[in-house]
Amino acid sequence: MMNTDDTIYALATAWAESALAIVRTSGPHAISLCSRCFSRPKALIDAPSASLVHGYIVDPATSVRIDEVVAAVYRDGHGYTGEEAVEFTCHGSLPGLKRILDLFGANGLRAAEPGEFTFRAFVHGRLDLTQAEAVQELVAARSAASQSLALSRLDGALRRRIEELKQSTLDIVSFVEVQLDYAEDEIGGDTMFPRDSLRKTIAALDALAATWTAGRLYGQGARVVLAGATNAGKSSLFNLLLKEERAIVSDRHGTTRDFLEAWIQLEGIPIRLYDTAGLRDSDDSIEAEGIRRTEQLLDQADIVLLLLDGSRQDARQTLQSNIALAGERRTIVVWNKSDLGRPPADQEVIAVSSRTGEGMDRLTAELARRLKEGVSAGADDRLVIESERQRDGLARAAQALRRADELEDQGLPLDIVAVELNEALQALGELTGEVTEADVLERIFSGFCVGK
Amino acid sequence: MMNTDDTIYALATAWAESALAIVRTSGPHAISLCSRCFSRPKALIDAPSASLVHGYIVDPATSVRIDEVVAAVYRDGHGYTGEEAVEFTCHGSLPGLKRILDLFGANGLRAAEPGEFTFRAFVHGRLDLTQAEAVQELVAARSAASQSLALSRLDGALRRRIEELKQSTLDIVSFVEVQLDYAEDEIGGDTMFPRDSLRKTIAALDALAATWTAGRLYGQGARVVLAGATNAGKSSLFNLLLKEERAIVSDRHGTTRDFLEAWIQLEGIPIRLYDTAGLRDSDDSIEAEGIRRTEQLLDQADIVLLLLDGSRQDARQTLQSNIALAGERRTIVVWNKSDLGRPPADQEVIAVSSRTGEGMDRLTAELARRLKEGVSAGADDRLVIESERQRDGLARAAQALRRADELEDQGLPLDIVAVELNEALQALGELTGEVTEADVLERIFSGFCVGK
Repeated sequence: MMNTDDTIYALATAWAESALAIVRTSGPHAISLCSRCFSRPKALIDAPSASLVHGYIVDPATSVRIDEVVAAVYRDGHGYTGEEAVEFTCHGSLPGLKRILDLFGANGLRAAEPGEFTFRAFVHGRLDLTQAEAVQELVAARSAASQSLALSRLDGALRRRIEELKQSTLDIVSFVEVQLDYAEDEIGGDTMFPRDSLRKTIAALDALAATWTAGRLYGQGARVVLAGATNAGKSSLFNLLLKEERAIVSDRHGTTRDFLEAWIQLEGIPIRLYDTAGLRDSDDSIEAEGIRRTEQLLDQADIVLLLLDGSRQDARQTLQSNIALAGERRTIVVWNKSDLGRPPADQEVIAVSSRTGEGMDRLTAELARRLKEGVSAGADDRLVIESERQRDGLARAAQALRRADELEDQGLPLDIVAVELNEALQALGELTGEVTEADVLERIFSGFCVGK
Repeated sequence: MMNTDDTIYALATAWAESALAIVRTSGPHAISLCSRCFSRPKALIDAPSASLVHGYIVDPATSVRIDEVVAAVYRDGHGYTGEEAVEFTCHGSLPGLKRILDLFGANGLRAAEPGEFTFRAFVHGRLDLTQAEAVQELVAARSAASQSLALSRLDGALRRRIEELKQSTLDIVSFVEVQLDYAEDEIGGDTMFPRDSLRKTIAALDALAATWTAGRLYGQGARVVLAGATNAGKSSLFNLLLKEERAIVSDRHGTTRDFLEAWIQLEGIPIRLYDTAGLRDSDDSIEAEGIRRTEQLLDQADIVLLLLDGSRQDARQTLQSNIALAGERRTIVVWNKSDLGRPPADQEVIAVSSRTGEGMDRLTAELARRLKEGVSAGADDRLVIESERQRDGLARAAQALRRADELEDQGLPLDIVAVELNEALQALGELTGEVTEADVLERIFSGFCVGK
């Protein structure tokens, strides 16, 4: 992927029948290579940047027309990648798209790796690394809030904040260098070590790193699992939560599961909601697998909604027998069918009725409150980091500055302090991608979808 | 939908997470309405036709940025619909797309009905009705051959052919009108009724109508059902056919089925291949439903592949007990596991081995031959009709001309012949949409996908 000498192509829209689809290309010879497969080669070659050319994709070997398309032409430096690029808006026909992709593959273009268009945008300085990461976060966002946070990172908000922090650090480095280069009497004026500025920078780095909890919550979503005995009304509650809070339901392909899964959102937080097989003791070996999966889901849950069937005489006993789970900090005990049996006054439960809808407001409010518990105030502004890489980089910079602070405090020579300050600068530079190892890049971009 | 005074919007790509997506708009005020939701309204309003403008979708009520996009601007008459249009290439984020669509809905645009963009292209004379139909056929095509045939119709090949046939008919009408308007001695020269030309036109109409069988085969695909006893190796053969001929496998969403279904293609013919539950007599009521579904599939099959387990001693008896199905013209009897047991010489069967792959070539060749049996030679050229509406219109025109021929032959007055000739012209005019009832249009466009 590190090779940017060739011209790449990929389907940038979903592989699904649809009205329209986009096949994008980028690279040093994009326009001339594409013009070989285009009914109006001269029109494409002569097209000004950022203009549209109508025509047909044509197989040059057979002169057979493959699709009617509109080509968006970007001359060198004007497109997303910062390279020459042609983006074709095609019909969303699967055989047609396959023919086009095969044709490009046979005519001098190379199929793009995941994230390769964004990688090239990074290489050509169109995006820094935090923006490149934001591209994938934006596409994969599960709620309007997470999409919005990612857009703000893509817009460079995070890059600018990191640049500010780097500038503060650079100012301290400059002070230290002046001290090192000149004798004290040569300088004159204020020669106090800028401790305040250093500590402010450390605090700012810590604050930004602390937004990670929020970023992860909004970006990756929370796992909420509905558990409880069979017939406690889990599926009714599942459907009710879906209906009320549904934003996007992702149709997950693949193997049949014995649990249901859907995405909802609550106050902007994307939630992966699971409805599980009923929890019960069973000697039946066939049921064991279902119960094993439920337990696995429970292990991974951020929040467990433990449902009790309030209409049953033994609801209290059921609560007692699940007291370990009920007592966990992440568990919300839900007393369902509250219209048929009132909840006990001495237990902390939320009474709801899936039938009448009673108590649903309280339940969703409590759910949102619990989810946001670990989230710092920083989550309210638009500047939130999402990637672990970013958090680690910020933490590394903060730690280096903390050591610099200590060393200076202990009266150690400034050249030793300078080592730590430069370590902080290095960490911040890696965040934006000024200095980055190849394997870090590989890791970042390989998580992308193809065509991005 | 018949209203074209307002500006419409729709997602034109699939509703699925992807690198990019297209939201299209069209209508008399598309540019000014979109500019209200765009970060650079003036750039959009001043953009020349067929040019691209980079910017952000912005909620005018809150000034919040919703997505970074590229807008393709088409001034009146230059886009797909023949109207003013703006097409936004957005990030393929589901929450982001939902926000954009909601925003347009709240800012003076209307959500498009299925096929409404193409309907407007038709209304504004950009496409005739046969081309409009081809748009949806193109998108829904299941093989490269069907996609290619649809593209040729979209390109106007069918429209031009129908225009030719209309011209031939008009020439005959002109002759008749001259005869009716002037006394015989006023005309002079040749006054013979152009019977040859009339019969040639009839033959051409018949030939075009006959391409419907091929068009349907390529356009809608054939249903091929694998049947046979349990353990006859149906699933192995299914997988083998899939692997060898797979073009596009459609992941069908929805209810769980007790049969498997996949699209393959064979010599360009799209095939919907079904693997069924084993055929067997059973008193088990639970199995009855599975068998009922298998029988339903068999009823609808174009071709049945009846599998016998050649490794079993009773394979011949199994064939005998299914002799009714085996004897049908659409059935191909497949003697599977031919490596374990040789087929009988006195029966017409195709011997294959799913294990060694032996006989697979013969099987697929025979399958293709059978499918093409009913297809006229016309299928080989690029001009094939697909819609039932087109076949009926051509048949109606041919019948009217046939009656004209007979009436003239019987020496009836030319004004009676003229009525039939005009009926033929009417039928041909309806085909291209020159004269069309509103409910016909409604029916055609309602079958479209949204955004097209």
